[in-house]
Amino acid sequence: MIHANTRTKMRANTAQLRPALDLVLERIVDVPPELVWRAWTTPEHLMKWFTPAPWKTVACEIDLRPGGVFRTVMRSPEGREFPNIGCYLEVIENERLAWTNTLEGGFRPTISSTVCGEDAFFAFTAVISLAPHGEGTRYTAFVMHGDEASAKRHEQMGFEEGWGKALEQLVAVAKQM
Amino acid sequence: MIHANTRTKMRANTAQLRPALDLVLERIVDVPPELVWRAWTTPEHLMKWFTPAPWKTVACEIDLRPGGVFRTVMRSPEGREFPNIGCYLEVIENERLAWTNTLEGGFRPTISSTVCGEDAFFAFTAVISLAPHGEGTRYTAFVMHGDEASAKRHEQMGFEEGWGKALEQLVAVAKQM
Repeated sequence: MIHANTRTKMRANTAQLRPALDLVLERIVDVPPELVWRAWTTPEHLMKWFTPAPWKTVACEIDLRPGGVFRTVMRSPEGREFPNIGCYLEVIENERLAWTNTLEGGFRPTISSTVCGEDAFFAFTAVISLAPHGEGTRYTAFVMHGDEASAKRHEQMGFEEGWGKALEQLVAVAKQM
Repeated sequence: MIHANTRTKMRANTAQLRPALDLVLERIVDVPPELVWRAWTTPEHLMKWFTPAPWKTVACEIDLRPGGVFRTVMRSPEGREFPNIGCYLEVIENERLAWTNTLEGGFRPTISSTVCGEDAFFAFTAVISLAPHGEGTRYTAFVMHGDEASAKRHEQMGFEEGWGKALEQLVAVAKQM
């Protein structure tokens, strides 16, 4: 009991929902949290499910600790590559994984010209939360933005469909682990 | 020994110097790390030294945990107020304190229009490191930026003089604790 309290106190302060700024995907999936965690934190597994087909994830680097880099490269069906760089903020095994694209490895800010450019960049912090649910998992992806325009842009890019489809792929991969 | 190793492994990945992008202030001060830490992490103390006089720090909010808010308001000699909002990334008591202004409390990105605006904003992550040095402290302020323009802007604003003067004020405050 003391241990549980201690951990609660030590948890980072995350996940205060602001509906105008945030996007949330919550699903019950029929694989346990341990497998969902492995699918999110092992490059070999992540590359199989991370991008909704026919897009592919062709590279992945994971340094699983606060301040560690989380880098992926997505490839479009036409062969164009899109690198994504981020930084882990919170790593609680089998339970919560948070990262942001405003920082890269070592908590260094991502280049500000990228932030201000006209490409598809928008700042976000994502928090994946897992909780046991029967034999499966209650899965919540909580994505925070700094302004409504970024949240809207992310939503219009197909957040719900894209993250939902990727999650289905994740579950299929987890079942084969 | 095992404890020391464990902590080393659990440390976040910070502080990889890139000279073109970073600013560093290193000093030996004659107060112990515990007092420097208190001066940095207690609003009552911080407000006394944080801004080089005649500037003042007129408000301070500290939620001392990863994801916790670090907010200050500075007031110029002419009475103009400048709020600063940031988010703690790493908190190792008496040893290391890291925060960034690219995120606010709860790891939420700061508003992107602020990042791209023409005011004085530039993205940074600061890491304050303390180590015992005789009766005093080896004090290192390591400030990372995402591009050379931001580092240069920070330097031209008087990083070395400003942070150095604030540190002198900190030491004076610490000696009266």
